[in-house]
Amino acid sequence: MANFFKGDLKIIMSKEIPYKIYLEENEIPKQWYNVRADMKNKPAPLLNPATHEPATLEELEQVFCTELAKQELNNDDAYIDIPEEIQNFYKMYRPAPLVRAYCLEKALDTPAHIYYKFEGNNTSGSHKLNSAIAQAYYAKKQGLKGVTTETGAGQWGTALSMSCSYFDLDCKVYMVKVSYEQKPFRREVMRTYGADVTPSPSDTTEVGRKILAEHPGTTGSLGCAISEAVEKAVSTEGYRYVLGSVLNQVLLHQTVIGLETKTALDKYDITPDIIIGCAGGGSNLGGLISPFVGEMLRGEKDYEIIAVEPKSCPSLTRGKFAYDFCDTGKVCPLAKMYTLGCDFIPSANHAGGLRYHGMSSILSQLYDDGYIKATSVEQTEVFKAATQFARVEGILPAPESSHAIKVAIDEALKCKETGEAKNIVFGLTGTGYFDMVAYQKYNDGLMTDYVPTDEELEASFAKLPKM
Amino acid sequence: MANFFKGDLKIIMSKEIPYKIYLEENEIPKQWYNVRADMKNKPAPLLNPATHEPATLEELEQVFCTELAKQELNNDDAYIDIPEEIQNFYKMYRPAPLVRAYCLEKALDTPAHIYYKFEGNNTSGSHKLNSAIAQAYYAKKQGLKGVTTETGAGQWGTALSMSCSYFDLDCKVYMVKVSYEQKPFRREVMRTYGADVTPSPSDTTEVGRKILAEHPGTTGSLGCAISEAVEKAVSTEGYRYVLGSVLNQVLLHQTVIGLETKTALDKYDITPDIIIGCAGGGSNLGGLISPFVGEMLRGEKDYEIIAVEPKSCPSLTRGKFAYDFCDTGKVCPLAKMYTLGCDFIPSANHAGGLRYHGMSSILSQLYDDGYIKATSVEQTEVFKAATQFARVEGILPAPESSHAIKVAIDEALKCKETGEAKNIVFGLTGTGYFDMVAYQKYNDGLMTDYVPTDEELEASFAKLPKM
Repeated sequence: MANFFKGDLKIIMSKEIPYKIYLEENEIPKQWYNVRADMKNKPAPLLNPATHEPATLEELEQVFCTELAKQELNNDDAYIDIPEEIQNFYKMYRPAPLVRAYCLEKALDTPAHIYYKFEGNNTSGSHKLNSAIAQAYYAKKQGLKGVTTETGAGQWGTALSMSCSYFDLDCKVYMVKVSYEQKPFRREVMRTYGADVTPSPSDTTEVGRKILAEHPGTTGSLGCAISEAVEKAVSTEGYRYVLGSVLNQVLLHQTVIGLETKTALDKYDITPDIIIGCAGGGSNLGGLISPFVGEMLRGEKDYEIIAVEPKSCPSLTRGKFAYDFCDTGKVCPLAKMYTLGCDFIPSANHAGGLRYHGMSSILSQLYDDGYIKATSVEQTEVFKAATQFARVEGILPAPESSHAIKVAIDEALKCKETGEAKNIVFGLTGTGYFDMVAYQKYNDGLMTDYVPTDEELEASFAKLPKM
Repeated sequence: MANFFKGDLKIIMSKEIPYKIYLEENEIPKQWYNVRADMKNKPAPLLNPATHEPATLEELEQVFCTELAKQELNNDDAYIDIPEEIQNFYKMYRPAPLVRAYCLEKALDTPAHIYYKFEGNNTSGSHKLNSAIAQAYYAKKQGLKGVTTETGAGQWGTALSMSCSYFDLDCKVYMVKVSYEQKPFRREVMRTYGADVTPSPSDTTEVGRKILAEHPGTTGSLGCAISEAVEKAVSTEGYRYVLGSVLNQVLLHQTVIGLETKTALDKYDITPDIIIGCAGGGSNLGGLISPFVGEMLRGEKDYEIIAVEPKSCPSLTRGKFAYDFCDTGKVCPLAKMYTLGCDFIPSANHAGGLRYHGMSSILSQLYDDGYIKATSVEQTEVFKAATQFARVEGILPAPESSHAIKVAIDEALKCKETGEAKNIVFGLTGTGYFDMVAYQKYNDGLMTDYVPTDEELEASFAKLPKM
């Protein structure tokens, strides 16, 4: 490990660029940036699963809040105003710092300059709050009574619980059963914020009862929980369903990450060479890179953008770019995305998040068009990078975020070989305080890796809907 | 609960004072403030437990790092330079924001202005890191191999593990057995930072073996763990013992809290009327109030300062101001402090920290001299305040910090009665992410209160050392 106490008492931190670049409160973005407006190849529309026709606003607003459904369909407006109530809430935990990883650079002895945008300084522990508060706001504005959602490890459920509590909305969370049982602390955080948390699959929905009947011992999956949450929303007066990733609207809200990052970099005349983000459903990555991809789409600049996913759930690197169901119960619209098939569930030994079978349509299109690259990493090396990072930078990162750390370290070590002083920016989406069971496994040397076989994936692809 | 979405879409946040006042990185204090220099009645010296004579530097440096022993004895220098390496580390998580609790004010409908200094935005989850990094630095500077310490719930142990990892020092933590077993996550955080964590009492020390022989089923206490850590330090070549609270040196390091608070308030011409902090051993409270008490001591200003402790461990409000042992094993120097007796252990139903039997000598003297007030609160009302705070301000507070929240709310409600727009400042020492078992108990309506009887306390006082 690095040692920051050397005989020469060398001062490692630059005087020019602060360790943390904090924007002023009035520099928090007042508009979200809608990258679709600048995309020549627009992301494919959501389809009605029955007719295979593009879902209309009227159809979407049965499930989603009306304003959010409009945002989902809006491929034209490059900027969308952030309502002042949401700006107010953002002030409670934003602007998020852009940190110069001086200590990591020193530990790696790299000429690269490493920066990370840290989104973990809030009780949800991740960037999820950026969209949760927006979705709660539009639900409240529409006069709804409450919202339903699903959550896996619980970051999104926590973020939504906090947001609903703030706007005095009911919040019903379907939590993947295995997480409900194994991660009771996140469940209690949600309950502290007044949410109603149900382990999924449950007997509170038809789809849940069906899944339970077919797979009595199931510990649940995100796909199941989505189906239950959607059913609950559409069958309950005054409720709508909200989702924490994948959707266009979510990526839109998450652009506060990228916009703040860009403002902070611009302030110090820093141009990133490489931008790295972990990718599950794509909300963090999409939010971080949108303003930069916008410049690429408009032909103004060029960046190397890398999506990092787990080898155990490799939707971009090994998936098919096809229309697929968003959920196991097949009650949601079809989305065109890089997908492993809607029944794909990562191996139980996979410790972190990033478990969703598909990838945001926007990111899928950008990837297909060559604007972003993708790579996948094994979890043991992810936790190794996480531990190395924690020990020198202080922050104990979420397993999800650590996928980006791993690749940022790899890129910085490449710079050490070549002598290039590249500017590497990555998204540190959150903290790992609720992931200590996984860390314990790593500390005890008991962590294992898993890579699905080609046969497994082929079997899953065979079940993709015929279009 | 409050609802921040009203029909009139009222904007609750002032344009004049930001929600969060962040200082610039170069405004992080470069010197600690030593309040003892301004005290007419100095805190009573530590005594050698064998001779009852004031402990000398030579005696103290057997246990503590030499520079820290000097700081312990330094009653004269008002300002002590913060070494640049420590300043560098402070940049990783400081300056800490001073937050204007606009949402809490609105929820309470109070004319009071409430501010809190939030120290929880780091992996240790609390202010403890401010002193841990300083102690690790001086240990490294002295050329030591490692340090030992005790930890209860684990904030201090985590902070020290992070600091030792940063400076490449060994870190041996004796963790109170009940916490080691019931709070495995904090233990894993410490292990992730490379610390060696032993449940206390253990068979690795003489005092541990003695305690185990006398009380075979004991689940340990802070007092036991201190004895073990001290023994280990003095019996191991190249090791010293470090402590996270109570000592003068710790309060000194923690003055970064108060100095930053004062700078932030001064920037916006805000004069606090009331300053509130939770008090266990006194490190947070002492650090927060020192610069303000300094003004009182010098006759420049006057503030109402309130220490808040749990009714289950009421050292200031019901303790004796007397010389007492700092640890159960009676291996440490004697300190004059408000104490409940060194064998006092709060009832097992007490969920939060603030469990130490005594109070910092500095704070004890200031309390005895009338510069600070003290009050005590029951834990059910503490968690009620914590939940109310979390729902409107977003941050899920540590149970310890929530003692201060409770009294801040009470004071704000008094202002509602009187119509006074007082400025209330309190210390929000940390987050409650590792305290969800306690929150669950509260959420389930199973939390109980406990107040020691007079008889219990008298029995404990009877065992105070005869001086």
